[in-house]
Amino acid sequence: MGTITLRVNYSETDQMGVVYHANYLIWFDRARTELMRETGLTYRELEQQGVYLAVSEVKVRYRAPARYDDLVQVRCWVRELASRRVTFGYAVERAGTGDLLATGETALLSLTHEHTLTRIPEHVSKLLTPIPDPVRL
Amino acid sequence: MGTITLRVNYSETDQMGVVYHANYLIWFDRARTELMRETGLTYRELEQQGVYLAVSEVKVRYRAPARYDDLVQVRCWVRELASRRVTFGYAVERAGTGDLLATGETALLSLTHEHTLTRIPEHVSKLLTPIPDPVRL
Amino acid sequence: MGTITLRVNYSETDQMGVVYHANYLIWFDRARTELMRETGLTYRELEQQGVYLAVSEVKVRYRAPARYDDLVQVRCWVRELASRRVTFGYAVERAGTGDLLATGETALLSLTHEHTLTRIPEHVSKLLTPIPDPVRL
Amino acid sequence: MGTITLRVNYSETDQMGVVYHANYLIWFDRARTELMRETGLTYRELEQQGVYLAVSEVKVRYRAPARYDDLVQVRCWVRELASRRVTFGYAVERAGTGDLLATGETALLSLTHEHTLTRIPEHVSKLLTPIPDPVRL
Repeated sequence: MGTITLRVNYSETDQMGVVYHANYLIWFDRARTELMRETGLTYRELEQQGVYLAVSEVKVRYRAPARYDDLVQVRCWVRELASRRVTFGYAVERAGTGDLLATGETALLSLTHEHTLTRIPEHVSKLLTPIPDPVRL
Repeated sequence: MGTITLRVNYSETDQMGVVYHANYLIWFDRARTELMRETGLTYRELEQQGVYLAVSEVKVRYRAPARYDDLVQVRCWVRELASRRVTFGYAVERAGTGDLLATGETALLSLTHEHTLTRIPEHVSKLLTPIPDPVRL
Repeated sequence: MGTITLRVNYSETDQMGVVYHANYLIWFDRARTELMRETGLTYRELEQQGVYLAVSEVKVRYRAPARYDDLVQVRCWVRELASRRVTFGYAVERAGTGDLLATGETALLSLTHEHTLTRIPEHVSKLLTPIPDPVRL
Repeated sequence: MGTITLRVNYSETDQMGVVYHANYLIWFDRARTELMRETGLTYRELEQQGVYLAVSEVKVRYRAPARYDDLVQVRCWVRELASRRVTFGYAVERAGTGDLLATGETALLSLTHEHTLTRIPEHVSKLLTPIPDPVRL
């Protein structure tokens, strides 16, 4: 499980006074990066080895708004692993209360530098162990 | 059908040399805004009347990358309409070739200024006529 | 002079109900891209020739707020040209009224693909003709 | 002095392989928020008291690029204080090495909720003590 805690910045709000919905995808990305760092292989190193993970599918359910200056926790885990594809799950919660703000899922495809599909190398796939969803997506 | 044509800006690219995936949600938003304008009631006017449409669900399938300086067309249409919820569909295509780059869907809930659920007013819902999906999502 | 007209999107607003200030740099970039296209050499082509223009300095003065759904015009022109550096000026105006919303300036350095300073090629510099500022910056 | 440490996210890079320049304004904002928190009055509280600080001027000098997954430190301090205006300085450094990546300055005007100029309240201005620039801007 990769977990980040972030402070909502003014730039992330919109005129409804809440976090603009596209920002959650960026939060997911940040949590996914930390999940990979914790496995012992950072995504930066993976790209240096010539393996790119490109987002091919995204789903988000927004449950409660996040607001400016809120402290928010984002958890990320591996949901499914296939030879060329890995799916991550996400839960966004208000830090402190644990209120669920959003859940989501992203599927990523393994690509070469030339953007053609390729198998996830074995030394990578063995680091990406799927776990049962800790919350219902 | 609301349609926009946009030019991919440098700010929308990432170091993979393609458009960063979160930007598609912004493109969807821009196309949705034009769809509403064409119905004769802009989203700005709707908010001035005290009705807010907040994104509650998002799905995107990325099919081919968009790149810097590409001309891209985004089409938006109403998929489903319920008393408090409206669902929009989206198709992102390369202008000129018509290659499908992404498809997606967003569900929006009708809220009051105090962020409580409310019925979509009848003068609004009658402008939001669902049509069959022009492409498979 | 490169000129773009853009519609302020919801994603560009913040909870103050106006356009978040960092977005103006993106608008400048979009206008600069169109200025270059009009010279007959797009920035995309310039990068394909191995010349990169990297922003080294930015100044913006915000004079009046832009709001959601406003139509905004951004003008861009060349202010100064040196062997390795080009400076652009910008004016952001409300379309229709011509009210001045912001002015700005960016300096860009000419870099190779390896990010070392290089002369702006002559076939490029002769396209970038400085003009007197049309508005006071 | 307000200091934040941040990890460069993929969303912040562009196809030149470095952080897109507009993101530095967002980093400045995050550092400024923490500076105010440390004075004992958060910017959120200030807005709740009806005082808004709107950016009226921005200057940035980019000195060296930041890259994906870099750890970056942003320092923020008060440069000048007037009755209706406060100016902040910023230094962006690579964490660890201390290499200077960028410096900048923003001026903010004190506004009421109706966006008219107003004096910075005394209980606020006494928290905003200018200090000499720790680096040359």
